[in-house]
Amino acid sequence: MLTVALVDAQLELIPSSITNHVSVVRSARKRGKPAEKMLLDSSLHHSAMQKLPDANRRGRPDIVHVFIMLCLDSILNQMGELRCLVHTVNDQLITVAPETRIPRNYNRFVGLMEQLFEKKSVPEDSPLLTLREPISATDFVEECRCGGNRIVLFSERGREVRLSKYFKELKESSITCLVGGFPHGDFAEELYTLADDVLSIYPTNLKAWTVTAEILVNYKNALLS
Amino acid sequence: MLTVALVDAQLELIPSSITNHVSVVRSARKRGKPAEKMLLDSSLHHSAMQKLPDANRRGRPDIVHVFIMLCLDSILNQMGELRCLVHTVNDQLITVAPETRIPRNYNRFVGLMEQLFEKKSVPEDSPLLTLREPISATDFVEECRCGGNRIVLFSERGREVRLSKYFKELKESSITCLVGGFPHGDFAEELYTLADDVLSIYPTNLKAWTVTAEILVNYKNALLS
Repeated sequence: MLTVALVDAQLELIPSSITNHVSVVRSARKRGKPAEKMLLDSSLHHSAMQKLPDANRRGRPDIVHVFIMLCLDSILNQMGELRCLVHTVNDQLITVAPETRIPRNYNRFVGLMEQLFEKKSVPEDSPLLTLREPISATDFVEECRCGGNRIVLFSERGREVRLSKYFKELKESSITCLVGGFPHGDFAEELYTLADDVLSIYPTNLKAWTVTAEILVNYKNALLS
Repeated sequence: MLTVALVDAQLELIPSSITNHVSVVRSARKRGKPAEKMLLDSSLHHSAMQKLPDANRRGRPDIVHVFIMLCLDSILNQMGELRCLVHTVNDQLITVAPETRIPRNYNRFVGLMEQLFEKKSVPEDSPLLTLREPISATDFVEECRCGGNRIVLFSERGREVRLSKYFKELKESSITCLVGGFPHGDFAEELYTLADDVLSIYPTNLKAWTVTAEILVNYKNALLS
């Protein structure tokens, strides 16, 4: 079983300090929704975000969207061998059930995430997406390790490997892969300490979806070989 | 060099027969744009589309968006070994330059495609995206073949293969892979006739992005092995 977790995912509601900014007010009016119940989105709230710390890193629901779609629609998920998790910048852990049908339209995905932040599970009667909080990244990774998982972090700073070979030679089949859910910068230093392996699959910085596709395809290949 | 082409891509402007429908008028007003210059989008124009032939297949710019992002951000593209093409349902061929930075936000992507339909190339001074029309799918595939490419079609109806093995054993390194850009149904029958190989990589119907990820990762692995 493979667990793929997007960590430090830049998925959060609009912080109260900027709900009065003109670009936020405008997008709230357009949606007919209170700003504090809306997701922060750098493509809409760019100017408002300049006041926030780590402005150039935040407000990226699109990364989470593509990540979840790739996971759920992968062959590995259809084989019943995948667990898909998202750990957000605000220490929330989102579990995505394998049978979830995630909206392929971005705007509908945003609506679904906003509902999840409000209700903590959707749909309410038989939840497919659940949100647990607060749980720190280190606690969540420790939980995975206690469940018998090898923890593998993907970072430019890691040891260079061919992923196809790495998965084939690995003795454990229970692995948790940690993929960065942010556009710039690095993981928190504790994650490097916690990881059993830190891997680099290409010398340059890769997008979260590129790393995710590499993991899903190569792990599935190794499983079938 | 690998060419990946999304074929029968459901990317088109709103047909004139439905520009007066209430859901289309509403979304045109919201965008402040004439309906006939806007992309058809099944998540916005669902009710209006019921009047159109092949309604449940059409209006899927989201498939094109994820396809292009996966291609451009792939390791293969960074290695300079990828050509990314989109052939639409209306016989338009879109060429995406490897250095293109595609908007990661869906709504901005839609705006860019609308500009491309209008101008035929964007940006106008030094084009990264170009649109050629009309060119039929069969003519376009013949062009690829004349350029020395092996034509490989991905379909549930194809011969079952392990893609990692298939690419490794292939003698040609110039391949054009055809991936369906539609959510339901099948390719036109001529494409089956034209293809040198028709491959199935999993017994069920897969999403375009799942097939694309499998192609990109496995071809790159074979190239590096």
